[in-house]
Amino acid sequence: MTPDQFRTVGHELIEWVAAYMERVETLPVIPPVAPGDVRAQLPAAAPEQGEPWDAIVADLDRIVVPATTHWQHPGWYAYFPANASGPSILGELVSAGLGMQGMLWSTGPVCTELETHVLDWLVDLLDLPRAFRSDSTGGGVIQHSASDAVLCAIVAARVQAGGDPASLVAYCSTQTHSSVEKDLRVAGIPHLRAIGVDGAYAMRADELARQIADDRAAGLTPFFCCASLGTTSSLAFDPVAAIGEVCRDAGVWLHVDAAMAGVAAICPEHRWLNDGLEHVASYATNAHKWLYTNFDCDLFWVRDRAALIGALSILPEYLRNAASESGAVIDYRDWHVPLGRRFRALKLWFVLRHYGAEGLRAALREDIQLAQELAAKVEGDPRLELAAPARLSLVCLRHRDGDDATRALLEAVNADGAVYLTHTVLDGSYTVRVSIGALPTERHHVERLWTLIDAAAGG
Amino acid sequence: MTPDQFRTVGHELIEWVAAYMERVETLPVIPPVAPGDVRAQLPAAAPEQGEPWDAIVADLDRIVVPATTHWQHPGWYAYFPANASGPSILGELVSAGLGMQGMLWSTGPVCTELETHVLDWLVDLLDLPRAFRSDSTGGGVIQHSASDAVLCAIVAARVQAGGDPASLVAYCSTQTHSSVEKDLRVAGIPHLRAIGVDGAYAMRADELARQIADDRAAGLTPFFCCASLGTTSSLAFDPVAAIGEVCRDAGVWLHVDAAMAGVAAICPEHRWLNDGLEHVASYATNAHKWLYTNFDCDLFWVRDRAALIGALSILPEYLRNAASESGAVIDYRDWHVPLGRRFRALKLWFVLRHYGAEGLRAALREDIQLAQELAAKVEGDPRLELAAPARLSLVCLRHRDGDDATRALLEAVNADGAVYLTHTVLDGSYTVRVSIGALPTERHHVERLWTLIDAAAGG
Repeated sequence: MTPDQFRTVGHELIEWVAAYMERVETLPVIPPVAPGDVRAQLPAAAPEQGEPWDAIVADLDRIVVPATTHWQHPGWYAYFPANASGPSILGELVSAGLGMQGMLWSTGPVCTELETHVLDWLVDLLDLPRAFRSDSTGGGVIQHSASDAVLCAIVAARVQAGGDPASLVAYCSTQTHSSVEKDLRVAGIPHLRAIGVDGAYAMRADELARQIADDRAAGLTPFFCCASLGTTSSLAFDPVAAIGEVCRDAGVWLHVDAAMAGVAAICPEHRWLNDGLEHVASYATNAHKWLYTNFDCDLFWVRDRAALIGALSILPEYLRNAASESGAVIDYRDWHVPLGRRFRALKLWFVLRHYGAEGLRAALREDIQLAQELAAKVEGDPRLELAAPARLSLVCLRHRDGDDATRALLEAVNADGAVYLTHTVLDGSYTVRVSIGALPTERHHVERLWTLIDAAAGG
Repeated sequence: MTPDQFRTVGHELIEWVAAYMERVETLPVIPPVAPGDVRAQLPAAAPEQGEPWDAIVADLDRIVVPATTHWQHPGWYAYFPANASGPSILGELVSAGLGMQGMLWSTGPVCTELETHVLDWLVDLLDLPRAFRSDSTGGGVIQHSASDAVLCAIVAARVQAGGDPASLVAYCSTQTHSSVEKDLRVAGIPHLRAIGVDGAYAMRADELARQIADDRAAGLTPFFCCASLGTTSSLAFDPVAAIGEVCRDAGVWLHVDAAMAGVAAICPEHRWLNDGLEHVASYATNAHKWLYTNFDCDLFWVRDRAALIGALSILPEYLRNAASESGAVIDYRDWHVPLGRRFRALKLWFVLRHYGAEGLRAALREDIQLAQELAAKVEGDPRLELAAPARLSLVCLRHRDGDDATRALLEAVNADGAVYLTHTVLDGSYTVRVSIGALPTERHHVERLWTLIDAAAGG
């Protein structure tokens, strides 16, 4: 493809993406497709000869969009927001165009330094501990996902703990994201304790302390704990300050998973999120959920970069180079599992510069306001109840008539096609989650959602 | 950012990327920057207010390009090709625009089915074992990198092996990529044996058999072996057929890492690459190296998808859905470590359709032809020697006067600025690697490279 062909098709696809942004609201959030429908439209073999772009672009409308789950729809209240803002899409474009592999400083100086710099910016913007900054003992790195961040934290903690791997014990709560269990399995850690939660679904620090003591008494080695700032099911906030004291006393590596909610600390009124982070060994939040940056862009900080690098660094001859050996540079290959890495800091830089901190704060505040107003309506409705405290942008609700009624409500609301809600189970009861934060969601969308909920709740 | 703003900036950035493609050849491959130069140009704090796009785009030229290592330069002979072709860049753009998270079939039906389908296409295009196809016992998935693929293979093999993790032993060769050692560390596997190689740097199957027998006699449990089809240092090819028989007899999971070279099997004359793959449990090759698809796009196949899914599947309530429970769909979250995933099959589909299989074969054949011609020149030059057999697109060479002369040659050639070579050590001797395969590299570029080598080799 010549640069001129790239221009022609590129301009067409910019128009295509812009038009998708404009029309996504008219599409059903969940496409009406059955398993196999997509494959049935595809040829059995790859083309032997190149095809014209008219055919390829036509297939975006014919095959791709009709089988797309529209995460960018204003009626997206499912799972979590996965905002692909314009600036982040364009950052991905330029990053792909440069095609740089930032595994070493020398293979991409700007890929490395912009990442370090922007993650330092975010330490300050989010008011995280100064020790997370690269000019202190720590530093930040972009990981693929929060799962990958937890895995790196687990491996660093395991190397730091030493001793017999069979004796190692990790801790989380009954509400912790499943990635922790998965990552422990990947890392070969045999023991995981799911600590009980309080009425607000937050980890009980006293129970954690008791379990750690019991395990130590049994000859085991407590080594890692994951606390959540914003659980997946109900956006519960574990008491990091209390957990942190327990972990500090026990010599346990405390990782904080603030995947969705952590970015809210960009607003000074939500800095309560950071209480206790001075005890934390590692911390992750996802710019690719609620900070307007398309996937992947997990932000991971450690207090002690030497512990992370020591766990993950292996240096073969073919990667040796003068810059690395000078000790004056960061080689991010030593900060995560993969060797290769794209230039993901670019899109984050575009987002921060296009919106500015004030623009991002305003967007988050609007989402939170809309969620709190919805929560108030639920609380004020005799047919419904909040299933958990409504914090920030997540509202968990139930029908007072029980699980079947709640399930029926979810199905009725989703049947409309213009909105999509997902569910969880809290304290044994079926629960509808309303996660507000998709980029194009405005007040009138949430008002329409309430109309649907109101109708579905019945007489 | 409104759709119209997106149009304006998007068109400008399409032009910017096209112009970068046109001018990259005029830039020094390695930017003349020192550690800290990039950060020194960046403000100490993130902007409070949004900035105009003129300023952001200007900084691409002022800050980014002058500190970019130009992997897309026609003089890129370092490490491996990381081709960001036009179609793949545009696939990344559209994928970012759709912003779909394909963790479950239901969260992105086209993201899932197109991926399965295109990986089935590639089983046929590369003439891989039929068992790798999704309509057999196996299936393919796009992983972040070859490192991530190996990690998944290790975890599946470990779960399949069962028993005491402390007794597990893995095998590779002295030439295997460092990611295997790193992944074993991540997975908490205590024992790794680096098997010796023959004169062509290929793993000795007899030594592998002997080591496995010794380990078993010592009460250990051999469980995993990684063979390479194209090692990083010298593009050596391990004898997979012989290794496969050893592994089959020993009940060892054999993974094949064909990261760079595997895609050459798209050409019928290179199907020798696939000898013995009928014994292989898992296999990975990177579309993001030599198959014109920008990073990340590692292609990973398993013979027994149940073994992989069984090792990596954890199902919390908030991810339950009717499609998954029907058993009729693939949920790719169970095929790798992270939960989230972008729509990476789209760019691969764009690449296969734009070039067609014939177009890709022609591109690979040209790279191989140029490399073989260069190798012949090295062989015919009394001052130089090949450090390893020149296979496919990699030429490893030395000065006959020894390490200092070889190092001086590398430095002299790189000093030109228009080409970039990297080094390795083979059999204790410093070796220059010439990896041919960057997308814009043409015959006249390689001829110019030879002129530089010729001059640098001295009298």
